[in-house]
Amino acid sequence: MSKSFFRFQWVWLLLALSGPILAQPPRGPLVVSPQVNPDKTVTFRYLAPSAGEVKLSAQFEKAPVAMTRDAQGIWSVTVGPVKPDIYPYSFQVDGVTVMDPANVAFFPNERFKASLVDVPGDTPLIHAMRDVPHGAVHYEYYPSIEGTTGSLVVYTPPGYDQFPSRKYPVFYLISGTTDTEETFFKVGKTNLILDNLIAEGRARHMIIVMPYGNMAARVAEQKGGSKPADPTVRDGADAVKRAKDFETDLVTNVIPYIEKSYRTVPGRENRAIGGFSRGGGQTLRTAFGNLDKFAWVCSYSSYLSPQEMDRSFPQIGGNPDQTNRQLKLLWVSVGSDDFLYKGTVEFMDYLKDKKVQFKSRITDGGHTWMNVKKYVAETAPLLFQP
Amino acid sequence: MSKSFFRFQWVWLLLALSGPILAQPPRGPLVVSPQVNPDKTVTFRYLAPSAGEVKLSAQFEKAPVAMTRDAQGIWSVTVGPVKPDIYPYSFQVDGVTVMDPANVAFFPNERFKASLVDVPGDTPLIHAMRDVPHGAVHYEYYPSIEGTTGSLVVYTPPGYDQFPSRKYPVFYLISGTTDTEETFFKVGKTNLILDNLIAEGRARHMIIVMPYGNMAARVAEQKGGSKPADPTVRDGADAVKRAKDFETDLVTNVIPYIEKSYRTVPGRENRAIGGFSRGGGQTLRTAFGNLDKFAWVCSYSSYLSPQEMDRSFPQIGGNPDQTNRQLKLLWVSVGSDDFLYKGTVEFMDYLKDKKVQFKSRITDGGHTWMNVKKYVAETAPLLFQP
Repeated sequence: MSKSFFRFQWVWLLLALSGPILAQPPRGPLVVSPQVNPDKTVTFRYLAPSAGEVKLSAQFEKAPVAMTRDAQGIWSVTVGPVKPDIYPYSFQVDGVTVMDPANVAFFPNERFKASLVDVPGDTPLIHAMRDVPHGAVHYEYYPSIEGTTGSLVVYTPPGYDQFPSRKYPVFYLISGTTDTEETFFKVGKTNLILDNLIAEGRARHMIIVMPYGNMAARVAEQKGGSKPADPTVRDGADAVKRAKDFETDLVTNVIPYIEKSYRTVPGRENRAIGGFSRGGGQTLRTAFGNLDKFAWVCSYSSYLSPQEMDRSFPQIGGNPDQTNRQLKLLWVSVGSDDFLYKGTVEFMDYLKDKKVQFKSRITDGGHTWMNVKKYVAETAPLLFQP
Repeated sequence: MSKSFFRFQWVWLLLALSGPILAQPPRGPLVVSPQVNPDKTVTFRYLAPSAGEVKLSAQFEKAPVAMTRDAQGIWSVTVGPVKPDIYPYSFQVDGVTVMDPANVAFFPNERFKASLVDVPGDTPLIHAMRDVPHGAVHYEYYPSIEGTTGSLVVYTPPGYDQFPSRKYPVFYLISGTTDTEETFFKVGKTNLILDNLIAEGRARHMIIVMPYGNMAARVAEQKGGSKPADPTVRDGADAVKRAKDFETDLVTNVIPYIEKSYRTVPGRENRAIGGFSRGGGQTLRTAFGNLDKFAWVCSYSSYLSPQEMDRSFPQIGGNPDQTNRQLKLLWVSVGSDDFLYKGTVEFMDYLKDKKVQFKSRITDGGHTWMNVKKYVAETAPLLFQP
């Protein structure tokens, strides 16, 4: 790897070290990608002199878009105008999916690799870096299940360090299947959304805790040693154990760790839980199984089936008056193109039928992080309000 | 993108949501990679049914290694035994370099994409996650040059939150060319190295601040708007401006921000600066230009030329008694296979000739993060000692 791996480092380093002494060394073309143009079109570029075919695969395009090669071997395409938002994309190089090597912004995920392109709005969007007071994001380790060390990403709001006597409510926020504990930060821009909502006076100052949802992978990595658990073997019992493990870890390990390490207001009315996709399922199971711990519940693009509700959480629909007294918010949202749309609407119908109060929001779009950002921006202002 | 992009999410999500209700849906093979075996060999796997050739490119191999395809279209190879360490690697799929899509551990960099494989030692290495008290890592925004918002990664040692009256010395640590502010955390494992050294009583509790070194890129991104500065146009004056911009930002923006936001001990004897590659050059320039601000200096795999020293920092060699009084540590290290070996040895010879005291360390290996981890583990114990 060493030679090609460090080609650019060589060049840049020599330039940086050399100052005006060295003549400019020879080098390959430096590729700029993505380039967002003033008219909201976006130019993508990828250097691959020997490739036969390169395509752009982007979440704002229905199908991969062919790119064309110039004399230097740089493939490019200009697409759009694109509706302002942050989108995952990748290149398909002779059928192989690759991230954009010229772009640092990436999508943390266990199973696919994608880069991110940020098309800014004419007025800054709710997830944009604005000139407002910023909170901070913290990476923490904590003692987790089965003797493993868990990882958490934690947002503290602006002013957290300046006012050491203030205490804050906590929103536990769980990302989707094969996402990691970094995805709500790196893709969801949850910290910037909160900074902006707080600056506008629209959301309360709160701590947001983003755990890792895949307990089985953590245990396999840390305790499996040289023989990782075979993740292709999964049966029903396994799936239930995984869901239960998450709930156990959150309630017995994560919450006590956070309440020891951060300045939190205790009690169920100062704890919210939310999540996307698998994280939404974990949210509903954990909340319905622990109503003494959570009063605010947000399910983004996920649901539990009526059968699952009746079997595992009969008291939710069975005693709606009690449920409605306990839950300050039950929010259920989904995109009309989401492959989970039908199941989510069935879940809403179940709640309606059982007279369980909830707020619902059906948006355009599919099972995407563009929608997750929207849902976070809509729900954060509702949390911890009188 | 949507279909193939979410293939695995579909599967995992359905399993997670379904519990014991749904039968197992059909799915493609789940690829496990990398797999470190008990004998320290490592098996790499990559799913590409239609590829013609797949190779492994790893920093522990001198040349790419051919992989072989099984009936399912999974390419694999087992290499080693590999000397325990953390190594960057990637796959070359029909000549295209790609990260390992099955591996979350990646190398944050502006120009190349690589994954990371961690081969553990029989006894845990200095960068391993051990069962010791852990510090935390914080992502911060601060007001930077030219009206931009800068980003910092900050390590606080174990106990920082438990002892609110304690103050700490600060080590400013700058990563290499095309690295980002995340590289010392994600690749260098600086937080775990310090956790372990502190647990062993070998290093003082300290704060470590990891800034982003590429000022020009930040300004272009945030102020260039839709028309990014053309990074292919660089001349000598540009290189000098970039180096100066970094120094100005560190001294006038970063240090005041850190000393306002964290509990630091003031004064030059409680400030260290170090860096790798381009960051080492920035370290030497910033330290030699601001000896009133830094007393501890670590240059990892980098140097300034004798001509540059004489022209820009004549007082360093011109008044060695004063230099030696001011510098509590000047450390210079390089690998014997590093492409900067010759220049670094010339720098050492220059210092020797001028009677400037320094500590030097020449190791095996090249211009790699395996060496950077070693250098951090060797220098951190020297910092802020009486």
